[in-house]
Amino acid sequence: MADDPLVIFTPSGKRGRFPTGTPILTAARQLGVDLDSVCGGRGICSKCQVAPSYGDFSKHGVTVRDDALSDWNAVEERYDRVRGLKKGRRLGCQATVQGDVVIDVPAESQVHRQVVRKAASDRAIVMDAATRLVLVEVAEPDMHEPSGDFERLQDALKEQWQIEGVTAGLPVLRKLQPALRKGKWQVTVALHRAQGAATSQVLDIWPGLHEGGLYGLAIDLGSTTIAAHLCDLDDGRVLASAGIMNPQIRFGEDLMSRVSYAMMNPGGDVEMTRAVREAINTLAVEIAGEAGIEPALIMETVFVCNPVMHHLLLGIDPVELGQAPFALATSSALDMPASDLDLDAINPQAQVYILPCIAGHVGADAAAVALSEEPDRSEDLVLIVDVGTNAEILLGSKEKVLACSSPTGPAFEGAQISSGQRAAPGAIERVEIDPTTKEPRFRIIGCDLWSDDPGFAEASAATGVTGICGSGIIEAVAEMRLAGIMDATGLIGSPGQVGTPRCEATDRTHAYLIHDGSAGGGPRITVTQGDIRAIQLAKSALYAGARLLMDELGVDHVDRVTLAGAFGAHISPKHAMVLGMIPDAPLDKVTSAGNAAGHGARIALCSRAARTRIEDAVRKIHKVETAVEPKFQEHFVNASAVPNAVDPFDILNSVVTLPKVHYGAAGGDGSAGGGRRRQRQRS
Amino acid sequence: MADDPLVIFTPSGKRGRFPTGTPILTAARQLGVDLDSVCGGRGICSKCQVAPSYGDFSKHGVTVRDDALSDWNAVEERYDRVRGLKKGRRLGCQATVQGDVVIDVPAESQVHRQVVRKAASDRAIVMDAATRLVLVEVAEPDMHEPSGDFERLQDALKEQWQIEGVTAGLPVLRKLQPALRKGKWQVTVALHRAQGAATSQVLDIWPGLHEGGLYGLAIDLGSTTIAAHLCDLDDGRVLASAGIMNPQIRFGEDLMSRVSYAMMNPGGDVEMTRAVREAINTLAVEIAGEAGIEPALIMETVFVCNPVMHHLLLGIDPVELGQAPFALATSSALDMPASDLDLDAINPQAQVYILPCIAGHVGADAAAVALSEEPDRSEDLVLIVDVGTNAEILLGSKEKVLACSSPTGPAFEGAQISSGQRAAPGAIERVEIDPTTKEPRFRIIGCDLWSDDPGFAEASAATGVTGICGSGIIEAVAEMRLAGIMDATGLIGSPGQVGTPRCEATDRTHAYLIHDGSAGGGPRITVTQGDIRAIQLAKSALYAGARLLMDELGVDHVDRVTLAGAFGAHISPKHAMVLGMIPDAPLDKVTSAGNAAGHGARIALCSRAARTRIEDAVRKIHKVETAVEPKFQEHFVNASAVPNAVDPFDILNSVVTLPKVHYGAAGGDGSAGGGRRRQRQRS
Repeated sequence: MADDPLVIFTPSGKRGRFPTGTPILTAARQLGVDLDSVCGGRGICSKCQVAPSYGDFSKHGVTVRDDALSDWNAVEERYDRVRGLKKGRRLGCQATVQGDVVIDVPAESQVHRQVVRKAASDRAIVMDAATRLVLVEVAEPDMHEPSGDFERLQDALKEQWQIEGVTAGLPVLRKLQPALRKGKWQVTVALHRAQGAATSQVLDIWPGLHEGGLYGLAIDLGSTTIAAHLCDLDDGRVLASAGIMNPQIRFGEDLMSRVSYAMMNPGGDVEMTRAVREAINTLAVEIAGEAGIEPALIMETVFVCNPVMHHLLLGIDPVELGQAPFALATSSALDMPASDLDLDAINPQAQVYILPCIAGHVGADAAAVALSEEPDRSEDLVLIVDVGTNAEILLGSKEKVLACSSPTGPAFEGAQISSGQRAAPGAIERVEIDPTTKEPRFRIIGCDLWSDDPGFAEASAATGVTGICGSGIIEAVAEMRLAGIMDATGLIGSPGQVGTPRCEATDRTHAYLIHDGSAGGGPRITVTQGDIRAIQLAKSALYAGARLLMDELGVDHVDRVTLAGAFGAHISPKHAMVLGMIPDAPLDKVTSAGNAAGHGARIALCSRAARTRIEDAVRKIHKVETAVEPKFQEHFVNASAVPNAVDPFDILNSVVTLPKVHYGAAGGDGSAGGGRRRQRQRS
Repeated sequence: MADDPLVIFTPSGKRGRFPTGTPILTAARQLGVDLDSVCGGRGICSKCQVAPSYGDFSKHGVTVRDDALSDWNAVEERYDRVRGLKKGRRLGCQATVQGDVVIDVPAESQVHRQVVRKAASDRAIVMDAATRLVLVEVAEPDMHEPSGDFERLQDALKEQWQIEGVTAGLPVLRKLQPALRKGKWQVTVALHRAQGAATSQVLDIWPGLHEGGLYGLAIDLGSTTIAAHLCDLDDGRVLASAGIMNPQIRFGEDLMSRVSYAMMNPGGDVEMTRAVREAINTLAVEIAGEAGIEPALIMETVFVCNPVMHHLLLGIDPVELGQAPFALATSSALDMPASDLDLDAINPQAQVYILPCIAGHVGADAAAVALSEEPDRSEDLVLIVDVGTNAEILLGSKEKVLACSSPTGPAFEGAQISSGQRAAPGAIERVEIDPTTKEPRFRIIGCDLWSDDPGFAEASAATGVTGICGSGIIEAVAEMRLAGIMDATGLIGSPGQVGTPRCEATDRTHAYLIHDGSAGGGPRITVTQGDIRAIQLAKSALYAGARLLMDELGVDHVDRVTLAGAFGAHISPKHAMVLGMIPDAPLDKVTSAGNAAGHGARIALCSRAARTRIEDAVRKIHKVETAVEPKFQEHFVNASAVPNAVDPFDILNSVVTLPKVHYGAAGGDGSAGGGRRRQRQRS
């Protein structure tokens, strides 16, 4: 009625008139205001907290009197006493309308609240988890109108929450009767509804109000490491992050050797599947322990992984992925109970979502990168490389997105490098070489000092200098090129040529000594000619993949480059470009996205809409198969050179200040003019 | 076009004009004629066999020339050579229309063919199994347009069979790639679509054409025995039937003692669940062996059972079923994978359907009886009693159906009877007592002769006379009443009273000797006063339940009585009525339905429509709870008498000829007039 009080909600601006005595929660629901509630208005969950504003609101055309809401009531009193209610807050289900009022819904009271992903990103996740908690009051059984307890639960969900088509598996049916009786016919259910589904499934049930929350795991299942974020499904917060080695490494370092293992050993795929599932269970228990929650409260798990890991996780023999035409058994996104994957450490009814694969070589991990980095929404042309044992490469903009995978091998991860090691304390991760003296300095993981800083020996004593990791070897090779120790073909000069005794003769080639710890019983860390070749192969593969996509799109430059992957986060863009890992781009347009695949997994964990979005996006991505593309081979061969130092400096000097260097004997090609690298490499 | 040849299908009468050259299968599909095909018209499955008719069909207005169909082609030639094609038959996918033609679709070529259930019934099952076979040709992978093998299978099913929304579980995804390659991109899939579902699930996959068929189990899971029919899902034939003891008997003979076991022993329900599931696996292997099929080809399993067995099968603690208000955890029909019930002997992807329960005491077995006997479609008022340890009772007509359960106890099954035993060779199953001489004669299971026939001793020597089973004790008690050995209250007279030395004094009561095998080391088989009391209790419970439903419906007679259950099949209607087990009805209106619950299970196995039908019907059945109904107690107390002999004879003489008997001393109440039994029993 026109005389009824006006209720205005902020920030939505939704407004309507409601009879005096209407609870704020009721008004919010009728207006479609996004106000949370687990207990359905029983004053026990406190999710519907609101902040009424009083006074003159000329912009809204109302004046809110002090008595615009009902008085603080016994329920609010008790709630405040027991758990505390922030000053100025009311429970939306208790406070009733008495006059015109302006009600602010704070972010934490919104169901679909936004969660900022990370400081570096301007994109937020809008919470829309597939599993939510709901408190419901179930009618007691009546033997004269017999019906099952579950059927009465269904009726109650329909009546109290307008949720229809609810199902439950046997584990829930087993817990149902004791829970209902213990909770005096009030129970909290964890309701799962998949994206686009018409029905919901009860995943778990608790007597009365369940206050322990619900959690999810976003798992980036890599060939080498399995990394997980444990997230609160209510607000998307990351409560803990952890990683463990993929135990399949004992069956083969890289993917193709695991496929070979499966081919050569009957039952080998089953063995690898069992190993990875056990590791995931172990990881789940560890990460839950770290966050201090029950593993049984983990109700959702999202996986992103490359196609081989995808199949090995699902228990599908990956043999077809090892040979053309690289057919996936299934490429679609998958929903399944966690029990199908033997994930018995978490809730037995937990649901798994696996992102779609893009192609036989471009997996759900690349899809997750696309979900996180959104090339399909980019105005400018972006190249995204997720650097790992295989590099996934995405190129595109909102017009079109292309994807491929490139077999970089494990060199970028420190494997197949003479002094190489995984990124761990003691590993050299940063290297600088003075272009004049040719003397190196470096930093190791776990120590903030450079090796030539005073006190480095003491500060690094705990681990010592143990080897060189992926980012370290990239910087070392790039710096060797910049310092004129190595020529454009990758050849390390002799001490006489480059003017430093650090170049040592080894067999018929030379090696550059970065660190000699032999006096203290430590290793001598050198960059050998073989190391250079391994890095050249890896970077050529990466570069050739990117070039292939650029050819396919008919472009010869990109507007920006995003380095993704845990490793990508540690690569110095400058050195990557010196090395020729990636096509030229303005240095300030080369950024790291961190673990974009892991971010994508987390987004899919928190948002059903994101799942729908990436499923649509993947269908539209144009796939390019590098393995059989003659142009890829051509680019690969042509990309082996490390570009002469003029090119990078042309770029680098425009954004960073670097000392000018003089070139040693091997730097004779430094006199060549500007031109594009690829063209010159062909000459 | 009007000039196109006219194709008329019989028996449907559907007709249409099709261009010359149209395959008959195509014409049938376009007209919606029910013509089967597994291979989709590839000429390999032979399911689409048709019988063309030639000559003058004036009733159809056409003349069919000899060349109305294309010539016998190479595919048919080969098929006939390899497997044989009945004379006059053509393959519908090969024969093409060349002129006006009349095509008969024989019953075995119809998808929805009718299957006659049994000779005694006039109702047929229309085949509509939830799982069917389909041959499909899948596109080979193309690495330039990468998609998963499963996604291409989905596309093929949509294109070739118009089946959309197909899903598959991991076990199928695991088999998919080898099957496609082995079958050269032709595979047969077993597709399951639940009643009312929009999506189908691939349950299994075979390279090329799978010719091994698909099978289903219809299981009647009783407290004492587990009985199963193995059926062909294509035509509904019963290939084998088998039964085994329910191993839960060791936890308690009757349902309530099993509920007690669960209450008194933590984990006792889990133990019982494990036992019954193991037994079902054993039974499945046995029955498949008997039929000579692979257990892995069992794709569907239907269960009917009482509520306690229902919960114990599902792994739900049955404790709530042991106390008012007897709340079921769930009463709806259930669909689930067989793996949820650990049924690993059959196909790992097999689907289970469990009929709905009617109430806490009236289970899915009663629903199956209702599906088989269709009281809700009956014009006249029918009383259906399924006699077992608990009797399920249905009363009604198409107007309304009522249901209840009555705790008859195990006496009707020979338990708690002094010489009682289960129905097995050697057990007395039929008894007659000469009303004049008071001498008995009997028949045992496994021997066709009566005990007073010449040669009985030799014919029965293999087993001897071992005891008396349920139907035997009922006849014995009824005959004792008819012969005047026992009075209306159930008291056995002394030898002096009844004039036979077969009445022996035992403690303070008497017993009637039916057989004395002691000379040959065998048992003395008597009916003791205690036996009479046990039978009186059982029959009172049964009678009281039926009367309660009659009261509820406001009737005092029924038009007909159906005795269901394996035991019901062996009860003599005459003796049941003499005993007062069931309310009066014309004797020719008392029939046995055999194992109606088992029949109902088989109907649900063969027909999705039947599942929908019984789910609807059960919702409409009015449930009456005997356990707390004061009237039930009243009927129970009043029903303990064995009606005087006049009443039954009034009935019996109208349909069967029996010798008139004279009544002994105990028969003094025989003088009472007609009146209704219940009223007299009160006096």
